[in-house]
Amino acid sequence: MSTLLETIATVRRDVCELHAELTRYELVVWTAGNVSGRVPGHELMVIKPSGVSYDELTPELMVVTDLHGTPVDGDSTVHWGNPGLSPSSDTAAHAYVYRNMPEVGGVVHTHSTYATAWAARGEEIPCVLTMMGDEFGGSIPVGPFALIGDDSIGRGIVETLTASNSPAVLMQNHGPFTIGKDARAAVKAAVMCEEVARTVHIARQLGEPVPIDGAKIDSLYERYQNVYGR
Amino acid sequence: MSTLLETIATVRRDVCELHAELTRYELVVWTAGNVSGRVPGHELMVIKPSGVSYDELTPELMVVTDLHGTPVDGDSTVHWGNPGLSPSSDTAAHAYVYRNMPEVGGVVHTHSTYATAWAARGEEIPCVLTMMGDEFGGSIPVGPFALIGDDSIGRGIVETLTASNSPAVLMQNHGPFTIGKDARAAVKAAVMCEEVARTVHIARQLGEPVPIDGAKIDSLYERYQNVYGR
Amino acid sequence: MSTLLETIATVRRDVCELHAELTRYELVVWTAGNVSGRVPGHELMVIKPSGVSYDELTPELMVVTDLHGTPVDGDSTVHWGNPGLSPSSDTAAHAYVYRNMPEVGGVVHTHSTYATAWAARGEEIPCVLTMMGDEFGGSIPVGPFALIGDDSIGRGIVETLTASNSPAVLMQNHGPFTIGKDARAAVKAAVMCEEVARTVHIARQLGEPVPIDGAKIDSLYERYQNVYGR
Amino acid sequence: MSTLLETIATVRRDVCELHAELTRYELVVWTAGNVSGRVPGHELMVIKPSGVSYDELTPELMVVTDLHGTPVDGDSTVHWGNPGLSPSSDTAAHAYVYRNMPEVGGVVHTHSTYATAWAARGEEIPCVLTMMGDEFGGSIPVGPFALIGDDSIGRGIVETLTASNSPAVLMQNHGPFTIGKDARAAVKAAVMCEEVARTVHIARQLGEPVPIDGAKIDSLYERYQNVYGR
Repeated sequence: MSTLLETIATVRRDVCELHAELTRYELVVWTAGNVSGRVPGHELMVIKPSGVSYDELTPELMVVTDLHGTPVDGDSTVHWGNPGLSPSSDTAAHAYVYRNMPEVGGVVHTHSTYATAWAARGEEIPCVLTMMGDEFGGSIPVGPFALIGDDSIGRGIVETLTASNSPAVLMQNHGPFTIGKDARAAVKAAVMCEEVARTVHIARQLGEPVPIDGAKIDSLYERYQNVYGR
Repeated sequence: MSTLLETIATVRRDVCELHAELTRYELVVWTAGNVSGRVPGHELMVIKPSGVSYDELTPELMVVTDLHGTPVDGDSTVHWGNPGLSPSSDTAAHAYVYRNMPEVGGVVHTHSTYATAWAARGEEIPCVLTMMGDEFGGSIPVGPFALIGDDSIGRGIVETLTASNSPAVLMQNHGPFTIGKDARAAVKAAVMCEEVARTVHIARQLGEPVPIDGAKIDSLYERYQNVYGR
Repeated sequence: MSTLLETIATVRRDVCELHAELTRYELVVWTAGNVSGRVPGHELMVIKPSGVSYDELTPELMVVTDLHGTPVDGDSTVHWGNPGLSPSSDTAAHAYVYRNMPEVGGVVHTHSTYATAWAARGEEIPCVLTMMGDEFGGSIPVGPFALIGDDSIGRGIVETLTASNSPAVLMQNHGPFTIGKDARAAVKAAVMCEEVARTVHIARQLGEPVPIDGAKIDSLYERYQNVYGR
Repeated sequence: MSTLLETIATVRRDVCELHAELTRYELVVWTAGNVSGRVPGHELMVIKPSGVSYDELTPELMVVTDLHGTPVDGDSTVHWGNPGLSPSSDTAAHAYVYRNMPEVGGVVHTHSTYATAWAARGEEIPCVLTMMGDEFGGSIPVGPFALIGDDSIGRGIVETLTASNSPAVLMQNHGPFTIGKDARAAVKAAVMCEEVARTVHIARQLGEPVPIDGAKIDSLYERYQNVYGR
C-alpha cells in the first residue's frame, strides 16, 4: 500500500520534471506537449494535466489514470490525492500505447517544429546520419492521419512503431509521438527525433544527403543498443 | 469607484506580465510588439507605453486610454495614475478593434518572424496541421496593406477577422494582429500563430504538405472550442 | 577635467552594457562583434577590448582611443585608467566613421547570421516590410569587399551610408556595420537589421514578397523619424 | 607527483567548464557532444564521461585516460581519483588525434546542426566569409565515412586535417570534429565552425555567395594567425 503510494510519488516527480526538457529543447510552446509514465507493476499511468502551463507544473498536479485514461484516485485502501484536473487531451493515445505495448514505460507527444513539418508532408525521415543509426536504427516512420476522440491515434502509433526499430512515429499532419522503457527514455527519443528531423531537413535544403547502406545502419544500431542498452 | 480602480490595476498587471510571453517565445525584438486589454464593463483599455523596453515594464507604466486611444487619467471622482507616457504607436489599431468587436477583450501585435514572412508575400497560411484546425479553424488570413496614421489598419483587421474563424490576421507587409476573449487568449493566439507559421513554412520548403479536408478541420475546431472554450 | 573623466565613465558603462544586447539577440558568438561610442565633445571614442569574452566585460576594461584608434590614457592633467588591453581589431573602421561622420555617436559591428548571409551574396535587402520603411527608409545597402589593415573598410562604410537613408550597411563577404546618434541607437539598428534580414530571407524562400512603393516607404520613414526622433 | 595531480586537476576543471560553451551555443543536445584536453607533458588526456548530462558534470567526473583511451587512475606513486565511469564513446577518436598530432592540446566533437547538415551531404563549406578566412584559412573539409569501433574515425580526422589549414573537419554523415592548441581553442573552433556552416548555408539558400579569391584568403589567414596567435 505504502509501496504503491511511493511508486506513484516517484513517477509523478519524474513525469513532472521531465517536462522541463521539452521546454529546454524548445519542443513545445504554450501547453502543447505532454509526458506520461507507467506506474510499474500496476495498471496505472501518470500524465500531465490539461491546460496547465509548464511553469506551474508540480508533482501533485500530475494526474493518475487507469490504462483507459480514466482518472482514479486510489483503491479500496488508499487515496493518492489526484488534483481534480483533467488529464491531457492526448491521454487516450498514451493509454492505448500502454495497453498494447507492455514493454513501454513512457510516452511523449510534442508538436516540435521540424518533426511536425515532415509529418505535415507525410514523409518519413531517411536515415542519413550515424546518430540516427544509433538511436533509431533506420528511418523515422509516418503514422496515419487520425482524428482525436477514439482509439485511432493510439492504434496508428502502435501499428507504426511495431513495424519499425524507431521509438518515434510522425503522425501525419499532427506531430511526433515517442516511446521508451521509461518516461526519461521517451523524452530522449523526442529530443533526438527533433534533432535529426532538423538536421536532415537542413541537409536536404541544398541537395541530397549521402545514403548510408542498410548493413552499416544495422551495425550502428546493434552496437549502440548493446553497449548503452535502451 | 474603488472597483474601477481595482479592475484597472488587475488589467494593468495582466497586460504588463503578458509581455514576458512575447519575449519568452521570441515574437518580438527591442520594443516592436505590444499587448492590450479591455477594462471589462468600461469604455477603457490598457496598453504598453511607446518606446519602453520589455525589461523595464511595470504595471504602473501601462497606459489607460479610451476606446479611441486617447490617454485618460480618471473621471470626475478618481485618478488612476497614468504614467505620462505615450501609448504604443499601434494604439489606434487596438482601439478600433475594441470599438468594433465587443466580444474581444485582448489584442496583440507583433512582427514575429515567420508570420511576418507570410505577410510580406501576402499569402495566407493553409490549414495543414491538426493544431491549426484546433486553434484557428482553417487558414490564417491576410489583411490589406495599410499605412499607419488613420483607421485603415484597424478596419483591415476587423474586416478580415470578421470573415474568418481565425483569431489571427496577417496584415500585408506588416505582421500579425491577434485577438482573444482577454489579453491572455490574444497572447496565446500570437504564440500559436507564429508556431504554425513556422511549421508550415518549413514543411513547404521541401514539398507540399498533405491537405486536410474541410469537414475534418470543422470537426477539430468544433471539438476544441467546445471542450476547451475559447 | 573631472567632467571629462565622468563623461568617459558614462560612455564606458554604456558601451560595456550594450554588448549584452548583442548576446541577448544572438547577433554574436564568442568575441565576434563590438560596440563603440563617441565621447561627446572630445576627439575620443570608447570600444570593446580585443579577445575578451562578453561575460567578462566591465566598464573598466573598455578602451579609450583617439579618433585614429590609438589608445590614449589621459592628457596633461589626468589619467583615465586604460586597461592595457588592445582595442577591438575593428577599431580602425569605427574610428574612420567617427572622423568622417560627425553626426554619428555610436558604431556597431557584428556577423549576425542573416545579415551576413545577404552580405555573402553581395545582395541588398529590399524594403518589403513596413518596419523596414520605419527604421531604414528603404533597402539596406551593400558596401564593397575590403580587407582589414587600412582605411578601406571604414571608407566603404562611410561612402555607402552617405548615399542611403539606412543606418546599416552590409560589407560584402563580411557582415553588417550600423551607426546611430549614440551607441544605443547603433545597437538598435544592429538588432533591427538582423530582424529584417531574417524576415525578408524567410519571406523570399517561398516566393516573392509584395513590393511597397517608394512614396509609401517615404511616408513611413518620414513619420517614424519625426514622431520618434532618431 | 603533486605537480601532475595539480595539472590533472586544472585540465579536469577546464574540460568540465568548457562543456557549458557547447550548450550555450546550442551545439549539442542531450549528451551528444564532448570535449577533451591533453595533460601537458604526459601521455594522458581528460575527457567527458559517457552518458552523463551536461548539467551534472563536475571536474571530478571527468575521466583520465592514456592516449589509447584506456582509463588510468594513477601511477606507482599516486592515484588521481578516476570516477569509475566510462569515458565518452568517442574517446578512441580523440585519443588517435593526440597520438598522431603532437601539437594538438584539445579536441571537440559535436553534432551541431548546420555543420552536420553539410557533413550529411559530404560537401565542404566554401570560404566565402572574411571570418572564415581568419579562422579556417580556406574551406572546411569533409572526412570519410567511418564506423565507430576501431581507428577509422581518428585516422579520417587526422588525414583530413593534416591536408588543410582548417581546425575543423566534417566527418561524412556524422558531424564535426575540431582541434586546437588547448581545449578552449578547440571549443572556439567548434563554435565558429557551426557559425560559418549556418551563415554559408543561409547565404546559399537564395543564390550563390560571391567567391573570395585565394590570395585574399591567405592574407586574412596569415594576418589573423600572426596577430592573434592560434
